[in-house]
Amino acid sequence: MLLSYAVTTSAEAPFRKLLISRQDNTRVEHWSRDHRDQPLPLDAEWAVRKSVLHGGKQEGVDLIEIDNGRLRLVIVPTRGMSVYEAVLNDVRLGWDSPVKELVHPRHIDLQSRGGLGWLEGFNEWMVRCGLESAGHPGEDRFINNIGDEASMNLTLHGKIGNIPASEVEVIVENQPPYRIRVRGRVDERMFYGPQLELWTEVATSINSDSFSLHDSLTNRGGSEQEFQLIYHANFGPPLLGPGARLVAPIRKISPFNEHAAAHLAQQSSYGPPTAGFVEQVYCLRPWADDQGKTSVMLQNPRGDRGVQLSWSLDELPYLTQWKNSADLKSGYVTGIEPGTGFPYNRRVERHYGRVPKLQPGQSRQFTLDFTVLDTAEAVKRGRRKIEAIARGRATVSQAAPEVDLELFR
Amino acid sequence: MLLSYAVTTSAEAPFRKLLISRQDNTRVEHWSRDHRDQPLPLDAEWAVRKSVLHGGKQEGVDLIEIDNGRLRLVIVPTRGMSVYEAVLNDVRLGWDSPVKELVHPRHIDLQSRGGLGWLEGFNEWMVRCGLESAGHPGEDRFINNIGDEASMNLTLHGKIGNIPASEVEVIVENQPPYRIRVRGRVDERMFYGPQLELWTEVATSINSDSFSLHDSLTNRGGSEQEFQLIYHANFGPPLLGPGARLVAPIRKISPFNEHAAAHLAQQSSYGPPTAGFVEQVYCLRPWADDQGKTSVMLQNPRGDRGVQLSWSLDELPYLTQWKNSADLKSGYVTGIEPGTGFPYNRRVERHYGRVPKLQPGQSRQFTLDFTVLDTAEAVKRGRRKIEAIARGRATVSQAAPEVDLELFR
Amino acid sequence: MLLSYAVTTSAEAPFRKLLISRQDNTRVEHWSRDHRDQPLPLDAEWAVRKSVLHGGKQEGVDLIEIDNGRLRLVIVPTRGMSVYEAVLNDVRLGWDSPVKELVHPRHIDLQSRGGLGWLEGFNEWMVRCGLESAGHPGEDRFINNIGDEASMNLTLHGKIGNIPASEVEVIVENQPPYRIRVRGRVDERMFYGPQLELWTEVATSINSDSFSLHDSLTNRGGSEQEFQLIYHANFGPPLLGPGARLVAPIRKISPFNEHAAAHLAQQSSYGPPTAGFVEQVYCLRPWADDQGKTSVMLQNPRGDRGVQLSWSLDELPYLTQWKNSADLKSGYVTGIEPGTGFPYNRRVERHYGRVPKLQPGQSRQFTLDFTVLDTAEAVKRGRRKIEAIARGRATVSQAAPEVDLELFR
Repeated sequence: MLLSYAVTTSAEAPFRKLLISRQDNTRVEHWSRDHRDQPLPLDAEWAVRKSVLHGGKQEGVDLIEIDNGRLRLVIVPTRGMSVYEAVLNDVRLGWDSPVKELVHPRHIDLQSRGGLGWLEGFNEWMVRCGLESAGHPGEDRFINNIGDEASMNLTLHGKIGNIPASEVEVIVENQPPYRIRVRGRVDERMFYGPQLELWTEVATSINSDSFSLHDSLTNRGGSEQEFQLIYHANFGPPLLGPGARLVAPIRKISPFNEHAAAHLAQQSSYGPPTAGFVEQVYCLRPWADDQGKTSVMLQNPRGDRGVQLSWSLDELPYLTQWKNSADLKSGYVTGIEPGTGFPYNRRVERHYGRVPKLQPGQSRQFTLDFTVLDTAEAVKRGRRKIEAIARGRATVSQAAPEVDLELFR
Repeated sequence: MLLSYAVTTSAEAPFRKLLISRQDNTRVEHWSRDHRDQPLPLDAEWAVRKSVLHGGKQEGVDLIEIDNGRLRLVIVPTRGMSVYEAVLNDVRLGWDSPVKELVHPRHIDLQSRGGLGWLEGFNEWMVRCGLESAGHPGEDRFINNIGDEASMNLTLHGKIGNIPASEVEVIVENQPPYRIRVRGRVDERMFYGPQLELWTEVATSINSDSFSLHDSLTNRGGSEQEFQLIYHANFGPPLLGPGARLVAPIRKISPFNEHAAAHLAQQSSYGPPTAGFVEQVYCLRPWADDQGKTSVMLQNPRGDRGVQLSWSLDELPYLTQWKNSADLKSGYVTGIEPGTGFPYNRRVERHYGRVPKLQPGQSRQFTLDFTVLDTAEAVKRGRRKIEAIARGRATVSQAAPEVDLELFR
Repeated sequence: MLLSYAVTTSAEAPFRKLLISRQDNTRVEHWSRDHRDQPLPLDAEWAVRKSVLHGGKQEGVDLIEIDNGRLRLVIVPTRGMSVYEAVLNDVRLGWDSPVKELVHPRHIDLQSRGGLGWLEGFNEWMVRCGLESAGHPGEDRFINNIGDEASMNLTLHGKIGNIPASEVEVIVENQPPYRIRVRGRVDERMFYGPQLELWTEVATSINSDSFSLHDSLTNRGGSEQEFQLIYHANFGPPLLGPGARLVAPIRKISPFNEHAAAHLAQQSSYGPPTAGFVEQVYCLRPWADDQGKTSVMLQNPRGDRGVQLSWSLDELPYLTQWKNSADLKSGYVTGIEPGTGFPYNRRVERHYGRVPKLQPGQSRQFTLDFTVLDTAEAVKRGRRKIEAIARGRATVSQAAPEVDLELFR
């Protein structure tokens, strides 16, 4: 997969730097490259920096910052290539979690608190849930690969967010669109278990207000393999606030549970930070355009800041909206989460046909595009794009949860 | 909370050195300061040293030693600012645990052995139990903050002793009483959970035979928060031995369980190391002096060595005595443990009204003073101080456990 | 135990180098010594190297390579002194696990997947199972040291393979047989639990095609202590292949379970890699020679490559054969596992009298000799040695499992 790390001599070939590698037995602690090291025909003070965090539970955690001259992204190789935040001027994609450190996985016990240990490290803007399982904790009963009935206790949102990357490289292109790319491989492998290889990529062009995630998931095992993948992207202020709205071309929507059902009418808008707020979760199936792509937007209360997410429904057919309008200290946040399924326990998801499989050697690609909208005009354009997808199409709103959890007791 | 770490220029201002900091992204591996670096108008060869441990399960553990010229203290930032030992001449506060390394928390699985994993790292003179829970493992059933019935499996003595400090600083004062202080912040935080911030401090004056712990616990969350805190101070030889005694102004005493009840008559004195000894635990409520302070003493068999603990009952109303007169290899040790409650499971403690709460932003302070008594005369003075508190006051001794554990099955 | 690490001045005294030590607070990251540093009267380009691994879950793992001029051994101090592989020309003792990294124990949660977390790090040629328990996960019910009934949830194959060594030294002898030795101490200790100290040693002579493990296990506790120890040695291609055979002087054999019983007739030979293959396990009791030693051999399909294992039945009376002819990606591997018992749950093993005890201070020694057979002639010699042990002696083959698992539900 990693073609070459030799210093490139061709002017056209992109610059590549291997920062972490199991294969080369390398880990670079501190490194940087910027517009002075690699002059590009653009007026931009871009930079990429590698550093290591210290103190408390974040001792030894690797960090990579991309500054494309306008937009700044922070990537955490040690935590499964999660993206801690993305900042453009006064718009920060991210949130203020009660967890203040980028916690090293060695301090996470996923099985703690009845399978909720994942929450002890949860503070990133975007953390992947998966790969063997991605949803709620609890027992999954199933037929295993030799035909026997098996059961397994799953932990919340799976392991991938707490596995350190085995290979990490930075690429800076010398040709338009002059992208800065950070690629990382995260392996979820075990004996008598999955052999899933995830190549992640964060890419942004110099001076752009957009960036993309490009992931490639491959089953390296000898048998077919179930997987689940949810992109848990989380937003607090300044985008979230009383009156903020999720704009989406909804084909079908249903509440995750009875509690969410009671608040279905207010699903698209957000209230103020509220002590004691109980999370409300909605299961959405968006409409797509002719190319199969959908797009949703979170806009701030004044409608002059926002973020637009676009992706292919062929890759990620489902969208979970997690509303958690708790007080600011407890975590005032909403999750906009495209996925291969919803975050019910895998046993539920399998029953409803939402647990895909990969054959041996098979890969699937996932691309998500994010644009920071930092003017009222940009927000308006974002809304128009979504309206164009939804135009003339109906929304089916189901009052009750579509899942009968009684079946799974 | 950390006001300034700039090098001080004023002769009066204390010297401050930041050794570990999440906020400043710093970790100093090796550092020291002594009487030659900072001359004080005292005849004392004091020193403070920061180092890192190597080998086995203690690889990478941070250590800070204070030598005040007479008394030596060893603090372990990586293990929740525990104090490994305090030594003055031939008196060592500490014990010989079967656990020989200062185990890095990454090697501790609190859930191991049915919630007893804490014991795999237990060897400090003083380790704090807490903060979300501090007692015995097992299921706690309770009403959560949204009014629902909830349950949670607790692990022995909680997490705080296995959380690395996020901020650690050393302060050496230039003014009387010329204290050396080591402060450390340990955070117990999670999403959908507590946001408890504990600032710990160990302080001792140059050439003193005493030292203090000054802790400040703050609820940084948005809702009220239960907490538990027990100072698990442990003593083996030379203080512990056959005929050693716990001298305490007891207002009320009860055995922790039936086994302890059978040995209530011998509660205050200690027998020899005994293979197969089963721990005996007693629940004490001490008397206080006019200022609300109590004082207890552990004296050695000859009555010429001891340690005196003094603290405010307003801060820590309860005292647990843990007698574990096992053979020397298994751990011949007694715990003298002031706390906000007893070490029953939190469910029991809550039922009996011994689980305090902190409102959002609220802090509570805890101060414990320790004096090493290294002559018969000092032990005599210590005893007189305790007798002065107890004088004319009755001791209620309850033969049976005060807790009905049947209620909690 | 560690007599002296001073640089030796005598020409006869072996060279010793302490690489990791809790006692000396030392960890050497990079080090090497070879035939140029220490000329020996042999024509051999031998070397010993210490390094540190990087990337993914193997960040920070210590590695020691021995090259005796002919045979290369890779030892992993961080993973309980496991041996990752042994290579002589085209014969590799080792296997291709789906686990591609030498996983740091901090990333292993033994309790994961119902006690199967050990499998997330399983890829060594030889990993020890033990010491408190060595077999299958699940509940063990027993009478504890104070006469009470107790229960404990065990995890697969115990802890010792995921405990980092506390002391590691290299010894290069100046006298015949000019051995290179790597010794490491791994402690399995806890409060209210075992205090087992294991000194491991890997030794090989310059230019030899053989090497030995010499282990010494001591109970450092104050009471008698159960223990279990299984040497889980694992072989894939080139030795394993369709038609490969386990040659052993079998006194008694029984299948581990009903599934293995159904394939008993093919026990000694191996089939090709097979997707969906379910492991087959056999319990063997070998015959010994006059000195109490037994010997078994795994030979490749053509009978021109093999490995011979020899050990004393007084030390390790039982032999487990684990056949796992899965597809190459899932792990095509067989385990040849001498042990103090079979890998049933400890509760089963105790019932059948296969859980030995150590008195306080008592030690037991374990020696295993391995020879790589790299010609058809060497394989023939190996077979003759085994036939000499078995000659005139009967094999009892039991068709059904000897263990009644119904007793333990």
